Amino acid sequence: MRISVYATPDSIMERDLKEQAVVVIDVLRATSTMITALYNGCKEVIPVKEIEEAINMSKNYDKDAYLLCGERNSQPIEGFHLSNSPLEYKRETVEGKTILFTTTNGTRAMKMTSDAKSVIVCGMINVDAVAEYILASGCDTVFVCAGTEGRFSLDDCITAGAVINRIKMRTDVDMDDLARVAADIYDNASGRIHEALKDTVHYKKLAALGLTADLEYCLTENAAPVIGLYQDGVVKLLDKVR
Amino acid sequence: MRISVYATPDSIMERDLKEQAVVVIDVLRATSTMITALYNGCKEVIPVKEIEEAINMSKNYDKDAYLLCGERNSQPIEGFHLSNSPLEYKRETVEGKTILFTTTNGTRAMKMTSDAKSVIVCGMINVDAVAEYILASGCDTVFVCAGTEGRFSLDDCITAGAVINRIKMRTDVDMDDLARVAADIYDNASGRIHEALKDTVHYKKLAALGLTADLEYCLTENAAPVIGLYQDGVVKLLDKVR
Repeated sequence: MRISVYATPDSIMERDLKEQAVVVIDVLRATSTMITALYNGCKEVIPVKEIEEAINMSKNYDKDAYLLCGERNSQPIEGFHLSNSPLEYKRETVEGKTILFTTTNGTRAMKMTSDAKSVIVCGMINVDAVAEYILASGCDTVFVCAGTEGRFSLDDCITAGAVINRIKMRTDVDMDDLARVAADIYDNASGRIHEALKDTVHYKKLAALGLTADLEYCLTENAAPVIGLYQDGVVKLLDKVR
Repeated sequence: MRISVYATPDSIMERDLKEQAVVVIDVLRATSTMITALYNGCKEVIPVKEIEEAINMSKNYDKDAYLLCGERNSQPIEGFHLSNSPLEYKRETVEGKTILFTTTNGTRAMKMTSDAKSVIVCGMINVDAVAEYILASGCDTVFVCAGTEGRFSLDDCITAGAVINRIKMRTDVDMDDLARVAADIYDNASGRIHEALKDTVHYKKLAALGLTADLEYCLTENAAPVIGLYQDGVVKLLDKVR
């Protein structure tokens, strides 16, 4: 199995993702939030690029059928129901609803993957499930890290490493350089991930905003052990897709 | 001092490099070759994007005043005087000459830096000199790794780490995530750099082509302890620029 890691969605431009499984990671916090919403019973998540677009789409739904959700610059969006904090996506809030979701980095990463055979939404909170899914698929796999403002972000890279380490323990893999680096970084940080990330750009930004409970949750392995699949513009729980 | 690392030249698109020192790295082998040519007394190196362009430029020079040099796909170019092997750039071959130089990844990286305050050509073979230059300049510094075919390449990243480690031992630095990763990787690989790179994409490719002497030389710290500065399209030895 070939495994590649892209540091940002920009680096997949013009690459061929056909016949590949694509794993999208924006661990702080967009993909963690989407997975949590699915885990807690939302109907689906629709990633949308612009705030206006999300508001326009919402007009097609009954008042109780959707939630407007997301962030800009890590902050809540005025007039939206939920921010990008996964801790707000409790069962009593999201169950049965369509989540119209717009975030700065994560949404963009999802939108860049339209060629792929399947697109899996990944965080630390579903790391074992993602590894199992990829192992079962046997497909060559591309990890697309959302990055932060178009830059390499260690939090996403270490999450890719967490999945890759689980895969390479169980099958032969041919890794590109960044896959190799990601796996090593995760290995070295094992059991002290907050220590490894505490001086990084995105982690520090969220900590400075007082979002330590989000950081704690997003970096808890297997806290929401489900697979979200992105198909035709919509993210659904694997069981509901099949 | 702020230190950033870009994994490929594409990632600096639209970024502001003004007032920044830029360090360009294509350790296997373009920047190592340029530094070696300067160390061995060439007059200057002119990085050129296309083979045709290099041939056309050569018509402006006396027959003995220039050498056509470079590679495509790591192989010599037909009709050119020298390939991209630094070991060919001996004093008796290059002294006093203008090197018209075209390579796949390195030239592109140089060309992307036109905004910068100063552009330094970096390899392992001049790592101490580059660190000294940056420390003396006191400027915020951006490392631009050439990468391999538009992808993250560990050989370039580890070379950035070699410089960053020397700088951060002597001054306070504010590192972005990839600078931090590069420094850690170099630290962990210290003294066994061939071991750290032996399974990476670019290193394996050159090894498979039988270029092990090049690999050995390019990864020898301080084998050619000079600074090459890129200004107005030409790389010259620092002493000759001042």
